[in-house]
Amino acid sequence: MKLGIIGAGNVGGTLGTRWAQAGHTVVFSSSDLTSAKMKQVLEKAGSNASAASVQDTVAASEIVVLATPWEAVEDIVKTTPGWDGKIIIDATNPLLPALSGLALGTTTSAAEMVAGWAPRAKVVKAFNTVGANIMADPKFPGHKVALFYCGDDKDAKQQVHTLAAELGFDPLDAGPLTQARVLEPFAMLWISLAYLAGFGRDIGFQFLRR
Amino acid sequence: MKLGIIGAGNVGGTLGTRWAQAGHTVVFSSSDLTSAKMKQVLEKAGSNASAASVQDTVAASEIVVLATPWEAVEDIVKTTPGWDGKIIIDATNPLLPALSGLALGTTTSAAEMVAGWAPRAKVVKAFNTVGANIMADPKFPGHKVALFYCGDDKDAKQQVHTLAAELGFDPLDAGPLTQARVLEPFAMLWISLAYLAGFGRDIGFQFLRR
Repeated sequence: MKLGIIGAGNVGGTLGTRWAQAGHTVVFSSSDLTSAKMKQVLEKAGSNASAASVQDTVAASEIVVLATPWEAVEDIVKTTPGWDGKIIIDATNPLLPALSGLALGTTTSAAEMVAGWAPRAKVVKAFNTVGANIMADPKFPGHKVALFYCGDDKDAKQQVHTLAAELGFDPLDAGPLTQARVLEPFAMLWISLAYLAGFGRDIGFQFLRR
Repeated sequence: MKLGIIGAGNVGGTLGTRWAQAGHTVVFSSSDLTSAKMKQVLEKAGSNASAASVQDTVAASEIVVLATPWEAVEDIVKTTPGWDGKIIIDATNPLLPALSGLALGTTTSAAEMVAGWAPRAKVVKAFNTVGANIMADPKFPGHKVALFYCGDDKDAKQQVHTLAAELGFDPLDAGPLTQARVLEPFAMLWISLAYLAGFGRDIGFQFLRR
């Protein structure tokens, strides 16, 4: 698949690197394409990866992952052309300063805002509920880490499902895009357990069925 | 321990019955102490269980579990005397009609509202994140189901921890009471997966650490 990653930080860098290493064509974009961080990401991702402007990344990709800080998303989505028909994977969380909570919720979600700004794209909320370290390596001996996604387009969700499975996750469809209203707080749970409650970042959730 | 359960429905009935069977003294209260449902709960719970008015239940108990619909909680807490120094376990979720979301969140939570109404009680949010069927039987072969709680009183949380462990859960401290802002949406995730996303009610989350 042709994948675009907006944001080459911990989340975007990790996801894009792993997908590039798995054989996908990956284009990274960030606010500074010549940064040391971008250079490092591209080196690690190898020959399937390149860097480009946001506009070129969107144009070159079937699926575009939003992995920037939430504050940057509105401007990026609104000012970049070419979203029509694209699959957008929204991996962001609208965090308040100092991880003190979510800036949105209950009556809307970051993912629904994104869908409003790119109305002819297919938005899937995914890869927002575990840390980049778990995306880099989701192996817990004897267990599978759940990776929830939600969205309103069945085919887009199926593709996200496949991408998550390729990373070693147990991908789970949580329903329509409005379910981002629970997946974003679910991310806050992971974040608060990792950083505030003392469990550290080597944590995850397994979804159990019987 | 002396446990009071306000609400003898699925959640309250299940928790109280299991704790009574484990040897705790349990007093149930509900809007109709002579209902067929209450009779059934008391029969199943056995000789350690009884029914009483809300006021008598609070007076008789060291720990009181709120397990009524959210709509009933404000009136119960505000109009009942005797909360000073009690441990309140808030097992409610402020659900919107048709499970369409949460009526509170982001900037507050049901648990924080309860704490505001009973300012000298020790409120712990717990037993709100899995269904009553999982509380009745949390066994998933080879796994432990996580039971998150949060609150501002260390001793109260330790007691809730013990109660959850006695039921067979993996009890986990998610931090201060403000964390109910993520545990209540986390409950919505369970609910929506069970009832809306097609997974059914025999589901749970295992918390993984490595």
